[in-house]
Amino acid sequence: MTSFSLSLETYRAAQARIRSYVRHTPIAPAPPLTDELPATLALKLENLQVTGSFKPRGVFNTLLSLDDAHKQRGVITASGGNHGVAVAYAAWRLGLPAIVYLPATASEDRVARVTAWGAQVIQHGAAWDDAHAAASAHAAREDRYYIHPFDADLTMAGQGTLGLELLDDVPDLDCVLIAIGGGGLIAGMANAIKQVKPGVRIIGVEPVGAPSMQAAVNAGHVVELAKLRTIADTLAPRAVSERTRALTAAYVDEIVLVEDAAMIDSMRWLWTHYNQLVEPSGAAVIAALRTGAVDVSACQHPVALICGGNAEAASVWQVYAARAEAKTRG
Amino acid sequence: MTSFSLSLETYRAAQARIRSYVRHTPIAPAPPLTDELPATLALKLENLQVTGSFKPRGVFNTLLSLDDAHKQRGVITASGGNHGVAVAYAAWRLGLPAIVYLPATASEDRVARVTAWGAQVIQHGAAWDDAHAAASAHAAREDRYYIHPFDADLTMAGQGTLGLELLDDVPDLDCVLIAIGGGGLIAGMANAIKQVKPGVRIIGVEPVGAPSMQAAVNAGHVVELAKLRTIADTLAPRAVSERTRALTAAYVDEIVLVEDAAMIDSMRWLWTHYNQLVEPSGAAVIAALRTGAVDVSACQHPVALICGGNAEAASVWQVYAARAEAKTRG
Repeated sequence: MTSFSLSLETYRAAQARIRSYVRHTPIAPAPPLTDELPATLALKLENLQVTGSFKPRGVFNTLLSLDDAHKQRGVITASGGNHGVAVAYAAWRLGLPAIVYLPATASEDRVARVTAWGAQVIQHGAAWDDAHAAASAHAAREDRYYIHPFDADLTMAGQGTLGLELLDDVPDLDCVLIAIGGGGLIAGMANAIKQVKPGVRIIGVEPVGAPSMQAAVNAGHVVELAKLRTIADTLAPRAVSERTRALTAAYVDEIVLVEDAAMIDSMRWLWTHYNQLVEPSGAAVIAALRTGAVDVSACQHPVALICGGNAEAASVWQVYAARAEAKTRG
Repeated sequence: MTSFSLSLETYRAAQARIRSYVRHTPIAPAPPLTDELPATLALKLENLQVTGSFKPRGVFNTLLSLDDAHKQRGVITASGGNHGVAVAYAAWRLGLPAIVYLPATASEDRVARVTAWGAQVIQHGAAWDDAHAAASAHAAREDRYYIHPFDADLTMAGQGTLGLELLDDVPDLDCVLIAIGGGGLIAGMANAIKQVKPGVRIIGVEPVGAPSMQAAVNAGHVVELAKLRTIADTLAPRAVSERTRALTAAYVDEIVLVEDAAMIDSMRWLWTHYNQLVEPSGAAVIAALRTGAVDVSACQHPVALICGGNAEAASVWQVYAARAEAKTRG
């Protein structure tokens, strides 16, 4: 038990608060196509959440809890991408102004997804942490509410609703794999799930090139990584927070690491066998299973959480547009 | 009522026969992201079926009904792509030999998906109809069972199970949009659904460049199109069959047409708003709604059937592999 723990009632209240704004996402049903993964494995397709990742859960829980003055002034955030899109969408849905800081390295597609919902984008710094520092200062300067992507009770309570939803989907759940970026998702889910069903085994997955949670848990305190070397940009803050570290240390059973190449290979696998195109972070849990980094053969009802789907697919439209053009000429 | 009609018991028997081999696919839940489509619209994600399309339903129903001699000799089929992948997969799953004829124009990805399951591929002719003629002759020559992709009772009964499944998913179903290729899917679904719930409005969708069913229904007999001009290769046989024409004329309420450009635009829309990458045929029903070709505003529980997902995504892996390579060097 850590002092950062939230009560089960807090998670249930968040679930009730956000219910009409987020999707109850599907579980990908059996049978599997190959013997490569446990036959009993289910996929929780949170890539089908509105805006393509789990992030709107925490964001809606935050925005719906703000007082009127903060709602009117509008909100600010900094994001590797998915959280920013979620803030932009939720603010649009609720009619609030929003400013989203993104790292200078954010893809055009990510920028377009944020601006599509009417939010103002400011690109700053090389990684999320740089954008975060600038956005926090901006928020303080103008007394706008800063929505932290992982280090806040309201955010974490929202992400934890995914744990409760999963227990509704799979009442006999005995094991779940969850990717780790800043740790808000795994902290909230583990905290919520273990209060309902303490025996569920919770496995975190991080990139080899950005093991900020594993380093923090091993050290017993937050560690800032000197170097980030992964294509899974949504799993790559330089450091987690004391809140997410403490909760992960208390409630997560193990953390395993996966290489970028294994994530790309598992993106292809998810496409070939489940027709789901996902981003690298969404495939990290599959990579952990397929590389043998984790063994769930003792589990009866394991679930792999596909946490985000916003892969860059622009090249696909180009292929089809060229083909349509050829048909018109042909 | 036409003489091609199958009894409700036939559809239910097919459903029981194939149950442990196919997936009960998810319904994409509300809320929608935009006001562009009816708020009540649900998406039936049959692109999440094993092998990425509805085709395994008819194929498993056929293979599981064969006598032992035909099972041992193995099966033959001709396919624009998805049916061939389904035959290859189902034959692999059941341990039968399979030969799959594909048009010479079939993409490398389609060929790879068929050979991945151990089937023999023979590429022949410019369109499905050419491959079909050669495959039928081959089957007759060697007394192998030919699995027709749409013009067969067993195939149609299998595809019709999707109608029964949809009624289980959405008991108040009052409208469903279904893409039309050879017509086996819409014929089976309409035939099954109308026996349970005659009031359900059933809308077929075809490419402007390959309106083989609309032409046949209007003429009152099968019509061979002189020219096929669409990127939706899985919706483009030169002609439907008398069986699927008669059933469509009897049970389908209307047929609407969509342009290739609208299908590509709706592929992007499905990606942006539901994170589902699908092939052009899978997006045809969304294109029909978004272009206003059909109006379902009077329906309380409309469903758009996303029938197939096997888009060509090879370009996506190239993008990520290049990025990973850069990270390794960086």
